[in-house]
Amino acid sequence: MIICKVIGHVWATKKEPNLEGLKLMVVQEDEPKTDKTYVAADVVGAGIGERVIVVSGSTARKAFGNDDIPADMAIVGIIDSVEINRKAK
Amino acid sequence: MIICKVIGHVWATKKEPNLEGLKLMVVQEDEPKTDKTYVAADVVGAGIGERVIVVSGSTARKAFGNDDIPADMAIVGIIDSVEINRKAK
Amino acid sequence: MIICKVIGHVWATKKEPNLEGLKLMVVQEDEPKTDKTYVAADVVGAGIGERVIVVSGSTARKAFGNDDIPADMAIVGIIDSVEINRKAK
Amino acid sequence: MIICKVIGHVWATKKEPNLEGLKLMVVQEDEPKTDKTYVAADVVGAGIGERVIVVSGSTARKAFGNDDIPADMAIVGIIDSVEINRKAK
Amino acid sequence: MIICKVIGHVWATKKEPNLEGLKLMVVQEDEPKTDKTYVAADVVGAGIGERVIVVSGSTARKAFGNDDIPADMAIVGIIDSVEINRKAK
Repeated sequence: MIICKVIGHVWATKKEPNLEGLKLMVVQEDEPKTDKTYVAADVVGAGIGERVIVVSGSTARKAFGNDDIPADMAIVGIIDSVEINRKAK
Repeated sequence: MIICKVIGHVWATKKEPNLEGLKLMVVQEDEPKTDKTYVAADVVGAGIGERVIVVSGSTARKAFGNDDIPADMAIVGIIDSVEINRKAK
Repeated sequence: MIICKVIGHVWATKKEPNLEGLKLMVVQEDEPKTDKTYVAADVVGAGIGERVIVVSGSTARKAFGNDDIPADMAIVGIIDSVEINRKAK
Repeated sequence: MIICKVIGHVWATKKEPNLEGLKLMVVQEDEPKTDKTYVAADVVGAGIGERVIVVSGSTARKAFGNDDIPADMAIVGIIDSVEINRKAK
Repeated sequence: MIICKVIGHVWATKKEPNLEGLKLMVVQEDEPKTDKTYVAADVVGAGIGERVIVVSGSTARKAFGNDDIPADMAIVGIIDSVEINRKAK
C-alpha cells in the first residue's frame, strides 16, 4: 500500500458501465511527497486533504467486493496517524 | 488508474488473434504530464486529444469482459473534468 | 521481493472492514536504501528497525491465507543476515 | 502495453521446464526510447529490429494460452505503423 | 522478465511457513546494470555471479508450481548467452 493525500475529484460521464456509482478521487503520493498522481475509487468516505491508504492492482477489486469492477486502485483506509522513525537502528 | 491523454493510434496486422478488433490507442501520462507513453485498448470511444482514465494489469481484462484478451491496459472513461487542489491541507 | 527496513506504524480507524486486525507498518526500501516508503501488513511479528522481506500484489494475499483481504503488501520474513558480493564475476 | 524494439535473443539451457520451446527475445522500450530492457517471449514471429507491442504480468499467460508458463512478458503484435500527435489539444 | 545477476543470499529464520525450504537469493538488474536489487526464490540451481532470468508477480507462483507460496519473484533460467544489437534498424 502507499500513503497518499486526496487532492481532487474526477468526473467521467462516458465510462465503462461497471464504474457507475464509484467515487473517483485524485490522490497524490505523500510519504514521501512526490508529484505522482493517481485516480482511486473511494470505499471509505475519504475527503479532500485527508491522508489515506491506497491499494493497487487486483487488490482493489477485493476492496470493492466485486470482481467485475474495472478499477485498479482503491482508497481502503483514512489515516489517523503515522509514526515514523527513519533513524531506527 | 492514471490520467492520460490520447495522442495516437497503433496498427499491427500480425498480432495475437484475440487482439483482433480492439482499437489500440497511444496514451501519454497527463497528470502530471510526462513523456511516458503506453498502448491501451479503448472500450469507451475515446478520440485523439481527450483526457482519459486508464487501467492496467488484470483489471484491463475486466473492462473487456473477456478474460482471454491479452491486453494489459484499457481506456475505461473519458474525463469531463478534473478538480485538483494541491494545496489541500 | 524487496528488502526493506521497518520504520513505523500507521493507524486508521476508518477502513475497509477486512483490514481489521492487521498490523500495518511503514517500511522503507533498504537494499539499496532509498526514500521510497510503503505500508505493509505484518504476518511475522516484525519490529521497528528490523530488516524484512516484503512481497507485493496478489502475493500478499497468499501470505494472509485469505483471498478477501484488500492489502497488497506483506512482510513475510525477518532477515537474519544478507550476504552480498557486488563484485561477483 | 508498451512499444518496444526487438534487439536480441537470450539462450538458457538450464531453465524451468515450462519455458521449454519459447522464443525468448530482448526488447527495449522505444516510445519514448529508453535504455530499459526486458526479456519477452515471442508469440507472433517477431524479428530483430522490429517494433512490437509487449504485454506484462498475468496478461502474458493469456497470450501463451497456457496458464502454467512462468513467463511474465510476451510480444503480442508486430507494429506496422504508429501515428502520434503529441500536440493534440 | 528481466535479466539480473545473482549477487548474494538472504537468511530469515522467522518467516511465513510456506517460504520454508525456498532458496532466497539477492539479484541485481544487469541489462542494463543498475543498483536495483531484489530477493528472488531460485528454482533452477543458480549460483553467485551467474546471469539469470527473473519473473515477477503471480508468474513466480507458476514457477514454484504451488499457488500458496508467498514469494513474488523467481529465478527461472540461467543465461548461457545474450546476443544484443542495440543498433538494429
